[in-house]
Amino acid sequence: MPFDYIPPLLTHNNKKIVLCVLDGLGGLPMIMGGKTALETAKTPNMNRLAKEGMIGQTIPIRPGITPGSGPAHLALFGYDPLQFDIGRGALSAAGVGLKVNQGDVAARGNFCTLDKDGMIIDRRAGRIPSNESLPIVKKLQGVQIPGVTVEVEQVKEYRFAIVMRGPNLDHHLEDSDPQVTGVPPLPVKATRKEAESTASLFNQWILEAKKVLADEPKANGITLRGFATDPGLTSFKDAYGLHAACIAVYPMYRGVAKLVGMDIIQFEGEKPQDEFNTLAQHWNDYDFFFVHIKKTDSMGEDGNFDGKVHIIESVDQALPELLNLKPDVLIITGDHSTPCKLRSHSWHPVPFLLWAPETHRPDEQDEFGEGACSHGSLGTFPALNTIPLALAHAEKLIKYGA
Amino acid sequence: MPFDYIPPLLTHNNKKIVLCVLDGLGGLPMIMGGKTALETAKTPNMNRLAKEGMIGQTIPIRPGITPGSGPAHLALFGYDPLQFDIGRGALSAAGVGLKVNQGDVAARGNFCTLDKDGMIIDRRAGRIPSNESLPIVKKLQGVQIPGVTVEVEQVKEYRFAIVMRGPNLDHHLEDSDPQVTGVPPLPVKATRKEAESTASLFNQWILEAKKVLADEPKANGITLRGFATDPGLTSFKDAYGLHAACIAVYPMYRGVAKLVGMDIIQFEGEKPQDEFNTLAQHWNDYDFFFVHIKKTDSMGEDGNFDGKVHIIESVDQALPELLNLKPDVLIITGDHSTPCKLRSHSWHPVPFLLWAPETHRPDEQDEFGEGACSHGSLGTFPALNTIPLALAHAEKLIKYGA
Repeated sequence: MPFDYIPPLLTHNNKKIVLCVLDGLGGLPMIMGGKTALETAKTPNMNRLAKEGMIGQTIPIRPGITPGSGPAHLALFGYDPLQFDIGRGALSAAGVGLKVNQGDVAARGNFCTLDKDGMIIDRRAGRIPSNESLPIVKKLQGVQIPGVTVEVEQVKEYRFAIVMRGPNLDHHLEDSDPQVTGVPPLPVKATRKEAESTASLFNQWILEAKKVLADEPKANGITLRGFATDPGLTSFKDAYGLHAACIAVYPMYRGVAKLVGMDIIQFEGEKPQDEFNTLAQHWNDYDFFFVHIKKTDSMGEDGNFDGKVHIIESVDQALPELLNLKPDVLIITGDHSTPCKLRSHSWHPVPFLLWAPETHRPDEQDEFGEGACSHGSLGTFPALNTIPLALAHAEKLIKYGA
Repeated sequence: MPFDYIPPLLTHNNKKIVLCVLDGLGGLPMIMGGKTALETAKTPNMNRLAKEGMIGQTIPIRPGITPGSGPAHLALFGYDPLQFDIGRGALSAAGVGLKVNQGDVAARGNFCTLDKDGMIIDRRAGRIPSNESLPIVKKLQGVQIPGVTVEVEQVKEYRFAIVMRGPNLDHHLEDSDPQVTGVPPLPVKATRKEAESTASLFNQWILEAKKVLADEPKANGITLRGFATDPGLTSFKDAYGLHAACIAVYPMYRGVAKLVGMDIIQFEGEKPQDEFNTLAQHWNDYDFFFVHIKKTDSMGEDGNFDGKVHIIESVDQALPELLNLKPDVLIITGDHSTPCKLRSHSWHPVPFLLWAPETHRPDEQDEFGEGACSHGSLGTFPALNTIPLALAHAEKLIKYGA
């Protein structure tokens, strides 16, 4: 339970909350004295919301800690990733629609290229494209070993997810990816005694899998990592009383949303307006919407400053459709920073905007950017506070104590 | 113990601390672009203190949580209400001078009006005025049952406090107020086995009480709620080394102050200057004064913006008398926000002013208001930090470690 004092305070109303996450939103100037991508982007709509509402900046995990996508989203949803340890395997499996029940063991899989001696020569199988890897994943789906059942689904390119189901499985296993080339994949090893038979089962499965992959020119080997089981998180409904929906293009984010019990809405298209269109179509079905925009992060990772500016502007241009729905609480933020200058996720605080015209206390800031957010009236605060603040501004919490 | 690292650091001096709480001080603008009540009020004295001293804003309980008065004051006094669970019955009883020892069971009582079939037709007995209810409370004081002693005191109007003393009592009891009319009061029920005999004793007492109230036209019934025993809080003296006094008009606030071991000063009058006069008279007797101004909150709950402005101005006008005493540390803040716009307590951060001319570090803010406080050098911080900050600025804490 993220906040055990919240469920007794929950009260129902028809107000609607939208949490719009621009992945990796926070940035850095490329040169001294410059502006960040968010500050450079022309965002008249976000600036108006910032002027009318209130802004601040969040610490995703802990000060100085650079988060991965999974932990960063869990924090935004109020589940402290240092308290709730959720393996990447469970996230990936959930993200491609594989069920992970308690006792199942999920992992992330990579195709790799092995030479004739079984040494890894490419850890990502030449970044084999998705259309090429799909038939290879189909082959893997036929690989079974006695005593357990194994399910495999494609993630993207050289990546897949795997779930093993059966009696007495234990997920305390070490990654088999050695992280370097010129050596063979590691055997799956148990990190505690109870997991030894599960390690052996995964190693048997890998052996069988290698047989069906033997003729593949690139994807003739496999590594597994992020072994995990269902973390058994309290659902969004139980934790916050919210009937919640996820609108996201990428499986990973659907996976995290699913782990906290959100409904995943299927839709066509990849652009911000496609996502906001989907939101509009389902507006009456939910009281909480998590909308995830991926490409701000991708541009950050690519070091593409103009590209990141452009993505932010495209979200701003699509915003009026969302605003026409008259959300009671709209939060626009990121899960972490991904400065183009660093070409990677970073620990820097994340711009945060909360607009709730009935209940917000406007501050004196009138634009949405890192500099303004560091002066906003919400201050610098843990991302964990996001949902409690949203619930409060939607007047979904009664008074604590008389 | 609120902060176990503080007692070993305490050192005695003659410096005096005043904590002046304007209940429900924080607010919201009534219209977009407007000002809050505090920002609207003409407060030349508070503005001077803000200019000379330092300001910030507090989170009363946790982000997004709207506090009741009891928890909000406990937080200001450094007792985390999520850690120290204190029933309202114990607060009310303490507030009217009834001792609540460990093992005693206290509750809040309401007179109600019952029809001839015993159904509640008015849960507050027509809000019977205090002068009419006093003789009825006297009647109740005569109602006793075998095996225990029962004490009753008037709170105000239709409300009273009750304490039962005797062997093997247990306060795990449910409210008997059904919260609706047209039904009879509920029997007092135990929420655990050990409390069943106590439930039975309260039901016996209510039965006897109904006999003596039978002829009352309005107050012929009783409901009880908020059953609690002494929470056994560490006293202010032990926690902070402070000889502390409470100057408050309303019983509730005296009650909380008493629970943490403050002396309650009796005085005539209800106005800020009456409270500051009382402070002046007892200036040499204590080193910590908690002064509570109630009506800012009442005006907020009534949605009376001009009224709230007026109360804040009346406090400001009375401040010179307090300042003439030359307090070493003066804190002016609220326990929570009560925006006139919402007509209720809220979760919004609370303006906070700390003036300690010998030790404060002045910031660049020069007025006392929500906007300025969100930019103050104290930042946004838990209300729990209030007393440690006061002790520090009064130089009552030695260095931690060498």
